Amino acid sequence: MTSLLTEIDAVGADRVRGGYSRPVLSEAELDLRSWFIEHARRRGLDVEVDANQIIWAWAGPPVDGALVTGSHLDSVPGGGAYDGPLGIASALVAFDRLAERDVPGSRAIAVFPEEEGSRFGVACLGSRLLTGAIAPERALALTDPAGLSLAEAMRAGGLDPRRMGADPTRLARIGTFLELHVEQGRGLVDLDRPVAVASSVLGHGRWRITILGRGDHAGTTLMSDRSDPMVAAARTVVQVQALARDVPDARATVGRLSPTPGGTNVIASRIDLWVDVRHPDDGVTRALVESIRTSASAAADAEGCTATMTEESFSGTVGFDPGLREELAEVLDRAPVLRTGAGHDAGVLAGHVPTAMLFVRNPTGVSHAPGEHVEPEDAEQGAVALTEAMTFLLQRGDGADG
Amino acid sequence: MTSLLTEIDAVGADRVRGGYSRPVLSEAELDLRSWFIEHARRRGLDVEVDANQIIWAWAGPPVDGALVTGSHLDSVPGGGAYDGPLGIASALVAFDRLAERDVPGSRAIAVFPEEEGSRFGVACLGSRLLTGAIAPERALALTDPAGLSLAEAMRAGGLDPRRMGADPTRLARIGTFLELHVEQGRGLVDLDRPVAVASSVLGHGRWRITILGRGDHAGTTLMSDRSDPMVAAARTVVQVQALARDVPDARATVGRLSPTPGGTNVIASRIDLWVDVRHPDDGVTRALVESIRTSASAAADAEGCTATMTEESFSGTVGFDPGLREELAEVLDRAPVLRTGAGHDAGVLAGHVPTAMLFVRNPTGVSHAPGEHVEPEDAEQGAVALTEAMTFLLQRGDGADG
Repeated sequence: MTSLLTEIDAVGADRVRGGYSRPVLSEAELDLRSWFIEHARRRGLDVEVDANQIIWAWAGPPVDGALVTGSHLDSVPGGGAYDGPLGIASALVAFDRLAERDVPGSRAIAVFPEEEGSRFGVACLGSRLLTGAIAPERALALTDPAGLSLAEAMRAGGLDPRRMGADPTRLARIGTFLELHVEQGRGLVDLDRPVAVASSVLGHGRWRITILGRGDHAGTTLMSDRSDPMVAAARTVVQVQALARDVPDARATVGRLSPTPGGTNVIASRIDLWVDVRHPDDGVTRALVESIRTSASAAADAEGCTATMTEESFSGTVGFDPGLREELAEVLDRAPVLRTGAGHDAGVLAGHVPTAMLFVRNPTGVSHAPGEHVEPEDAEQGAVALTEAMTFLLQRGDGADG
Repeated sequence: MTSLLTEIDAVGADRVRGGYSRPVLSEAELDLRSWFIEHARRRGLDVEVDANQIIWAWAGPPVDGALVTGSHLDSVPGGGAYDGPLGIASALVAFDRLAERDVPGSRAIAVFPEEEGSRFGVACLGSRLLTGAIAPERALALTDPAGLSLAEAMRAGGLDPRRMGADPTRLARIGTFLELHVEQGRGLVDLDRPVAVASSVLGHGRWRITILGRGDHAGTTLMSDRSDPMVAAARTVVQVQALARDVPDARATVGRLSPTPGGTNVIASRIDLWVDVRHPDDGVTRALVESIRTSASAAADAEGCTATMTEESFSGTVGFDPGLREELAEVLDRAPVLRTGAGHDAGVLAGHVPTAMLFVRNPTGVSHAPGEHVEPEDAEQGAVALTEAMTFLLQRGDGADG
């Protein structure tokens, strides 16, 4: 299990931030995709990359209603080694063991692109396109930090953006979806267990606030003559924290903020900042977002600037299939059932097909940072759990249409 | 005059920020350097690039005590078209006219690299190296936003960083230094005049504040469990404005702020922000910087973070040679005398040789932003003024050693 991850431990290593930076369609992410495809082919799986750039690796011919497992290979900037790749490597190992045991039933591994949304701003972009949760025109117009659109980035990589969009044919091939993922908190550490089953994904979304001011020279412009959007942005960041602290169980974060033009001796003309907001109750999330909007407008007004706030994505709280969840917890040595504050492709797919997730212990509890970790014995326990879960599902008939 | 600038109006155009981005040693800046060298050679000037990457173009053999004019070709991110190149293009035109008039006397044009400090953080880096104001070891260790050091960037461009540093031989060749620059405020607009002579450069410096917190997942980490350096940075930005407003004639600006890792769904682990502080009285500048340092530490403490503040550069207020200034104002049709809040290589050289500056009207008053402008007739007036000033200085004996 760990030897698979060792093969990719240099890919996308980020010497400035630490950890890994593997944005979608970057050289690093493309290298990981090639690595997966090579491993899938070596195992005799049939590999297909669909128009949404989802990689499917089938044991046997594609059929409707199969058991599909998968995760992602892209990362946040400076993220951990396991977030995404652990689920993919575990799937390869589980497929080996299912073949050794001659377990019947149709199955495939899926690799979803841009799960993190760290390049084009919308998380779970591959699964959203597949299910029709985002229109292809909107997805293709999304831009990365360098101003390149997804359509342009695809064309630059020799890919055809024209056929992107909802794909009911491939969606129908998923009878049950199962995603294994490193835990992004300390739930399993506190319970002293290696593997959990997911109960739900916290509702979450991201909103972009753009504050426009007047760019000018930092030395020649008097303090009283300024419309400085950096100050308005700073007041907004302070307010985001204060507002979220007032709402029990809410989380609101500004982790990305980008001044234009971004020179030291330049008053910015524009600040873009992104607010990530999460709460179990979608109505509360919406209300908190509206408070942030009001606060950003007031902060901009006070500096002679203007603020606009646009939703880049929103996913309501998703409960995974309760029957499936209980069955898997039972099969997996009465594994604990944990909810997660992180978003996943499984959360998008849960609205369409029976879906479950497995979490593997992360001793630091840290996520989206270099400190994320999985011990080798826990990675092995995760692969064992995925194999057992798939064996149980295939033997009871999931994937039997094949 | 304007045809020279028209030749370079596509070089480094920034489609994301607007205006021009021509950081030192970038393709755009190297293109501009080649453009200048070609024009200098076409005029029969002897071109030499020294170990500090300053370009010297000599009319006749290099001698001590010559009259040197010059400026820079690098820009801030998303800067205007004229900031730097106007002085270089005007110098080429002035040299043409001096040759036509057979004005005798040794003279050269100098192009200084990294005047803006927008890539490696220290403004006027070329003139600071030339004069020994910065040690070459420190300069070579400066890093750009991608983490590349100046030494690495030079080697990547096939340049030799080893001989960089104070160059008394070339400094001695400057008898008098004269820099023409677009005005970075509305002084000439308000006076309805095309050209001014500079009185002084406001003392200025830049300080980098690094705030370290704990990077983690934006969804899984409770508000109460966070050490979020973005919030501490935001409080610091708000305080920088408040503190500067309390000090008459002070300017303090945060125009550049960079979160690490910078993901939307990630609590940052580190924020770097840069504070540009200026005041006519160097003691007041120092006191304001100390207040900002105290404020940043308190903001970091309150979030469970740590803050450090380091000086990247500081230049005290510089008065230009008073005799030279008055003579030039007289020669140039009693040009107004204006001080400037912007830093310039002329300000660095003023500590070593008699130095003067000419400013050309900027109808918007905007600087370090795409809105900076010079009308063609004012650009011509500037070239005329530079020619007249050089003719006066050469005829009275500056550059006569040659």
